[in-house]
Amino acid sequence: MSNQMVYFFGNGQAEGQAKMKQTLGGKGANLAEMTNLGVPVPPGFTITTDTCKDYVDAGGKWPAGLKEQVDQNLAKLEQAMQAKLADPAAPLLVSVRSGAAVSMPGMMDTVLNLGLNDKVIEGIIAKTGNARFAYDIYRRFIDMFGDVVMGCDHEHFEHEIDSLKKRVKAKQDTDLTALQLAELVQRYKAVYKKHVGKMFPQDPTQQLELAINAVFKSWNSPRAIKYRELNHITGLHGTAVNVQAMVFGNMGNDCGTGVCFTRNPSTGQKEYYGEFLMNAQGEDVVAGIRTPEPMKQLGKKSPAIYKQLTGLMDKLERHYQDMQDIEFTIQQDRLFILQTRNGKRTAAAAVRIAVDMVKEKLIDKKQAVLRVEPSQVDQLLHPSFKPSAKRQVLCKGLPASPGAAVGQIVFTADDAESWRDKGKTVILVRIETSPEDIGGMDAAKGILTQRGGMTSHAAVVARGMGRCCVAGAGDLEINYKTRSMKVNGKTLKQGDWISLDGSAGEVLLGQLPTVDPELSGHFGTFMKWADEVRKLGVRTNADTPEDAARARAFGAEGIGLCRTEHMFFEGDRIWAVRQMILAADDYAELRNQIAPLETVDSPSREQVQTLARLKKEFRDPKAKFDGALKKLLPYQRQDFIGIFKAMAGLPVTIRLLDPPLHEFLPQDEKSQKEMASRMKVTPAAVKAKVDELHEINPMLGHRGVRLAITYPEIYRMQARAIMEAAITVARQKKKVLPEIMIPLVGTVLELKFVKKHIVDEIEKVFREKKSRVKYLIGTMIEVPRAAVTADRIAEEAEFFSFGTNDLTQMGMGFSRDDAGKFLKDYVRQGLYEFDPFQSLDRRGTGKLVKIGIELGRLTRPKLKVGICGEHGGDPRSIEFCHGIGMNYVSCSPFRVPVARLAAAHVALKG
Amino acid sequence: MSNQMVYFFGNGQAEGQAKMKQTLGGKGANLAEMTNLGVPVPPGFTITTDTCKDYVDAGGKWPAGLKEQVDQNLAKLEQAMQAKLADPAAPLLVSVRSGAAVSMPGMMDTVLNLGLNDKVIEGIIAKTGNARFAYDIYRRFIDMFGDVVMGCDHEHFEHEIDSLKKRVKAKQDTDLTALQLAELVQRYKAVYKKHVGKMFPQDPTQQLELAINAVFKSWNSPRAIKYRELNHITGLHGTAVNVQAMVFGNMGNDCGTGVCFTRNPSTGQKEYYGEFLMNAQGEDVVAGIRTPEPMKQLGKKSPAIYKQLTGLMDKLERHYQDMQDIEFTIQQDRLFILQTRNGKRTAAAAVRIAVDMVKEKLIDKKQAVLRVEPSQVDQLLHPSFKPSAKRQVLCKGLPASPGAAVGQIVFTADDAESWRDKGKTVILVRIETSPEDIGGMDAAKGILTQRGGMTSHAAVVARGMGRCCVAGAGDLEINYKTRSMKVNGKTLKQGDWISLDGSAGEVLLGQLPTVDPELSGHFGTFMKWADEVRKLGVRTNADTPEDAARARAFGAEGIGLCRTEHMFFEGDRIWAVRQMILAADDYAELRNQIAPLETVDSPSREQVQTLARLKKEFRDPKAKFDGALKKLLPYQRQDFIGIFKAMAGLPVTIRLLDPPLHEFLPQDEKSQKEMASRMKVTPAAVKAKVDELHEINPMLGHRGVRLAITYPEIYRMQARAIMEAAITVARQKKKVLPEIMIPLVGTVLELKFVKKHIVDEIEKVFREKKSRVKYLIGTMIEVPRAAVTADRIAEEAEFFSFGTNDLTQMGMGFSRDDAGKFLKDYVRQGLYEFDPFQSLDRRGTGKLVKIGIELGRLTRPKLKVGICGEHGGDPRSIEFCHGIGMNYVSCSPFRVPVARLAAAHVALKG
Repeated sequence: MSNQMVYFFGNGQAEGQAKMKQTLGGKGANLAEMTNLGVPVPPGFTITTDTCKDYVDAGGKWPAGLKEQVDQNLAKLEQAMQAKLADPAAPLLVSVRSGAAVSMPGMMDTVLNLGLNDKVIEGIIAKTGNARFAYDIYRRFIDMFGDVVMGCDHEHFEHEIDSLKKRVKAKQDTDLTALQLAELVQRYKAVYKKHVGKMFPQDPTQQLELAINAVFKSWNSPRAIKYRELNHITGLHGTAVNVQAMVFGNMGNDCGTGVCFTRNPSTGQKEYYGEFLMNAQGEDVVAGIRTPEPMKQLGKKSPAIYKQLTGLMDKLERHYQDMQDIEFTIQQDRLFILQTRNGKRTAAAAVRIAVDMVKEKLIDKKQAVLRVEPSQVDQLLHPSFKPSAKRQVLCKGLPASPGAAVGQIVFTADDAESWRDKGKTVILVRIETSPEDIGGMDAAKGILTQRGGMTSHAAVVARGMGRCCVAGAGDLEINYKTRSMKVNGKTLKQGDWISLDGSAGEVLLGQLPTVDPELSGHFGTFMKWADEVRKLGVRTNADTPEDAARARAFGAEGIGLCRTEHMFFEGDRIWAVRQMILAADDYAELRNQIAPLETVDSPSREQVQTLARLKKEFRDPKAKFDGALKKLLPYQRQDFIGIFKAMAGLPVTIRLLDPPLHEFLPQDEKSQKEMASRMKVTPAAVKAKVDELHEINPMLGHRGVRLAITYPEIYRMQARAIMEAAITVARQKKKVLPEIMIPLVGTVLELKFVKKHIVDEIEKVFREKKSRVKYLIGTMIEVPRAAVTADRIAEEAEFFSFGTNDLTQMGMGFSRDDAGKFLKDYVRQGLYEFDPFQSLDRRGTGKLVKIGIELGRLTRPKLKVGICGEHGGDPRSIEFCHGIGMNYVSCSPFRVPVARLAAAHVALKG
Repeated sequence: MSNQMVYFFGNGQAEGQAKMKQTLGGKGANLAEMTNLGVPVPPGFTITTDTCKDYVDAGGKWPAGLKEQVDQNLAKLEQAMQAKLADPAAPLLVSVRSGAAVSMPGMMDTVLNLGLNDKVIEGIIAKTGNARFAYDIYRRFIDMFGDVVMGCDHEHFEHEIDSLKKRVKAKQDTDLTALQLAELVQRYKAVYKKHVGKMFPQDPTQQLELAINAVFKSWNSPRAIKYRELNHITGLHGTAVNVQAMVFGNMGNDCGTGVCFTRNPSTGQKEYYGEFLMNAQGEDVVAGIRTPEPMKQLGKKSPAIYKQLTGLMDKLERHYQDMQDIEFTIQQDRLFILQTRNGKRTAAAAVRIAVDMVKEKLIDKKQAVLRVEPSQVDQLLHPSFKPSAKRQVLCKGLPASPGAAVGQIVFTADDAESWRDKGKTVILVRIETSPEDIGGMDAAKGILTQRGGMTSHAAVVARGMGRCCVAGAGDLEINYKTRSMKVNGKTLKQGDWISLDGSAGEVLLGQLPTVDPELSGHFGTFMKWADEVRKLGVRTNADTPEDAARARAFGAEGIGLCRTEHMFFEGDRIWAVRQMILAADDYAELRNQIAPLETVDSPSREQVQTLARLKKEFRDPKAKFDGALKKLLPYQRQDFIGIFKAMAGLPVTIRLLDPPLHEFLPQDEKSQKEMASRMKVTPAAVKAKVDELHEINPMLGHRGVRLAITYPEIYRMQARAIMEAAITVARQKKKVLPEIMIPLVGTVLELKFVKKHIVDEIEKVFREKKSRVKYLIGTMIEVPRAAVTADRIAEEAEFFSFGTNDLTQMGMGFSRDDAGKFLKDYVRQGLYEFDPFQSLDRRGTGKLVKIGIELGRLTRPKLKVGICGEHGGDPRSIEFCHGIGMNYVSCSPFRVPVARLAAAHVALKG
């Protein structure tokens, strides 16, 4: 045929094939492919996309010859199904669906059961003996046809069923009797007539023609045009139209319907898995009114069908080289496959299936690696709730840190610690958390906050600790005074049990049973294959020896970010820190006055006197300041010894003190009083210091390297602690590779300034200990200025680590503490595709990173570059990091396997 | 002479000349030049820089021949001065000074009066009859020689004079008698011996040799090396040594000393100006013990000298083509010129001199334009204190907005307004100001704040208004309760008089007399010449018709930034704004729920019901929100009508609403109560709204275009007001050129989104009014992301205006509200050369601006680009803006002439 507009599929043969997507659309090509494979899909035909174009171009007329081709194919279809349109004795019913070369959810809905009319319905009643079923599908068809094909709003039909139900006092649609449904059919026809302006067409051929036209027209519906625009879909001719025979699983006991998987989608085990119901429709399986039977029962009930089905399952899995999720219907002992697709599966199943399929030589290792989504891997590392557990969801929040936790709720960090000490398991509930809560967060099994996003303090710390966390559960109303919270009408008190699903972001009532993760042999094999292909290094963000050890077990190749500020909060250290802060101002002020006087060449008498006075005044704050740092030194050294041991042989990047000093001071009155009495000052003095350190925009305030410009002594103390620890560990024959990292650098001169202090202190340690250790000094790149002046910064920095959390905040001008309020409007309006704090904004923040790397390597071609923001654990961001030539990513311990797999994926795809 | 190491100058002839700087150093070359000009400088000789190198290279030995050349030149000098080293009868005293090719303040101090010894001193006493004078210069010489040449600390000599003064109960050095000074000479010699280890050298030839060596050595002193390092001075051989005869104006009544200017440095008038004292030293003129006589008296007392001097003044001015500041000494009826340099002058004088000199054909217009520093021009536009006024400085702050203001202090904005209404002149004193204070700031003559920097709210608003302002006067302790302030021990109450010097940043006690600015004809002529050469356009930042008119008078070529938020605060408008804010949340929330439901294709019954319910709930907030905007519309329209009229024919760039909504809510309890009663809600509801809108980092919060993403209606109202105003004014036959500017854009999609709303609203206005006006829509570039994605943003933006205040904050990560605390450490450590909020940080923020322009013009080659941050009025930043190809700068009205001149300077300098 010179101008084939219609392609038939059925009876084991199809005119089309998989590669004809452009002509037949995705759905049509796939139906043809399956038919050719010998899969018994219900037969039908596909009208080509070019025909749609011709129809549209002609202003809504069928091109010459189409009518004939449709008729011919309809006849073939009737023959294949042994049924005829409009024949009450053996009625052919069809579905009509759109289907372009690219999947377009914005297009026309499906029309089912086309072919019904007043006569055909009599035939169906006669055949099935089920009038209720018949009238129900008929009234549904009128509704669907009216709405989808003729543009008569569904609403109007709904109005009729509502008023009928009211009159007969029916609660559910299912309460309506056959007679009442028959009445409804009449009413629906009246509605149709009123709104469409014509009678409902009784001629199935006319129904079909109208439905085909509706599909053609839907190509240029506003919704479809908008969808193509938004998704940049161009170059398509139109949509294909698929007309396919309906098959019914509910026409008698020789009928049935079911869903099956070629392998177990929960465990991945190789077995036929699924369930079915005889004399039922697909809906019945879903609705749960009748209990479906497991697959193997089919083998007993209908061995021939079972054999045919399992044979097809094997064939489809081999063909698609992946586990298949298959819908089937048996109509009068004849098996039809309605759909097959790659089956969804749990992470555990995904890993097992991938590994097994390699063993079965179905796929190779590289394909296997690509079979598991990096984001899934996370599931394998945390406990989870038993899938069978009954969930009563109290409210939802953000899935801030994955896993499952069960505990009694407490509302303060102190309570969390003391209850834990009494052997209780607790969930810490806070409006939001602050660094003071660290102890309590560690003591809790899970953390729940009312405010804050995916990168709020609670979320970041919880992920770091591997604690389950649900953040920003806005429906909570927490009352610290009464130690209780209200949520959707319920009030929970301290001590009440809840469960948190950190992977789903759900808060659940009561104690749900959990299962621990099993890092089975399959997982190990799989991750080894991933490591074989990836190019990007994967390090971890870890602040404690425990975290470091865990991350190492998860495959981390070093520490990319060891934050030192957490070390300042623990136990008694905070008091030394606070002592330092109280003295810091006077200390710095006097030191700054003294320094220039000491270097005056020929001081005047006045200058000599001033110097003496200042030095006297300086004694007290200096003693306090130095004393505090001296107290902190051994603690820090001990911390680093632990970390270096845990990471022996691997690099450890230590970020020197970063947060503003006010974070170390208590914010509430009671704690301020406690501090005052401990520090032997007045509460007013503490309050005054808190006020003095208050900043309007703390994000852009006195922190990071800026602290060390004012107080270089702090970084000196830290550098000393690092090197004393490094020498201690090195003497135990363990290799240490310390990398000292300076945060918040904006200009090379800052780095030069602090580097001089640090190197000077380190050299002192080396002389004292008569021993040297190799080390690097590098910088975070997190201030936009640092990115655009990276060529100069690389003159001093021996490595770069991109702090993309802050770079995002400054580069995009979003405070991550505040943006939650309006970022939702951005996502709603489609202004950002992803939350930029979760997935690196490539065009903006990413551009700054790219500029930073390029400039940095202009100066230092082999510059080692990594990322240590939250993005380091996000697969999409990891892809970008790989693309722009980073050496490694660093992420929280539990994201390490995710990152390893994501790095493997990009290496394979790249 | 084949190897000339010493160059003589004197008796009207010199061996060197101006262009021999490399060999003779700057000072030596200049002395030679003046000598050759016929200027009677005290004779002397210069040892070359190469000789210094040879000395250093030889490890501290005089090269062969140097001794002979020094001796020969010394002999010539003795002859020229008719005096001899070591000759008590006619003693030659000399000064010895270093002098490299580049001025280096880090090098050796001067040694004066070299040649004194025990015998010479006798001769001087005999000659002057003034033993006190003689012993005093002798003991000073021993001190200076000991300290500078021999490295015996000045401190040791000071110790001697202190103990002597204690013993004889002298308060001042001048209380010491001749006899006591003679004793001091002996003690000084003992100190010298003790610390130097040798007797003080009595042989002047030896003194000279040691002094020359000391100068040579000073070339490699740590101070000098450090100085060269810091200033990147390389390629020099060494320092020259200048040995020059001392002359004395206090050796009798035929002696004298004075300072003169070739034109009046205060007014610029062409007249011989200056003063002198007979029989006196330079010090005496400065010390103010005797009153100097005006220049013309010299004409009467000594006509020949006067004639010679004025002749030289003319000659020097002609030679240097600039007004000269000349020091002279008359020694025994012989005139010596000690120094001539370009004279410092007031801004008014600078302008007048430049204009006059063009008329006198001494310089051309371009040279004239370069003769006035842009930063000086500011002085001419504001009142100032009478120079004669006695100043009692209470404390100092930052010179935040120039000018002089006198008034009674008040501590609240309300008081400022009510006192003003009673006819009083007031100074508004606040800890810091906020947008609520605008009315009071306007009512005050000047503004004084305790906190905040050069770009604090008070400073920015005051400069915009042309109000004098001293900001960040940290010594103030303001007590709002008692309406008083303490400052350095004094307490001032409400109603006390103070004066503010906004140009010097001084707070002065009492009422000082002021003088108004005179924009004389010279100024007009001068600025016209500047405009002839500049390439960069100059616009103004103005929010009111008054400011616009003033700026236009100052030469502004349009408005580059018209902020609309100030318009929201005035009078009753704030209540409409607050009404809008109270309703905004519910409004937006419901609107967002309704919108998707309305577009559902076939809504379910539940959806239909929900929609009905939501629409009902929506009525109240919608009425309030729309009502508030409707109230604001006529106000805004009226504002724009005024501004368009004032700027008829020139472009007006209007920035749509920028600040976060919380800035419009009252922060203190009392005002919140007032608002509650007015809005008919509970105070708790107001408080709750304030808390809800509170942001942790407001700089990075919900403001600018982000507001319009949530509430596009606000920008629609503003766009409507602008266009209705534009049409109204256009109908009055005045040309309007509105440019609508969107703030805080970070992604092109934001701009696209709001632009669609704005254009839609504008088209509505055009249809309603049956009239069109041309307009542009552009954007601020102030978020780093906008700069690095400017190519995409330029797809939608018809112009760019760089908001470098915010770009600096985000790009460098500095909150301008907080950075004051630590930026001082940065300046102290030399980490930033300039305060980045005052002068654009070229390498960082400037790089982002450059990237932004380059990318923007890739997309839109003729893209109009300007700057509207504070930097637009800073000469150094303007230079940068010119260099990177901006079209215009925009600054506060009073900076417009500054910017015009700065733009002319950079155009001339190329």
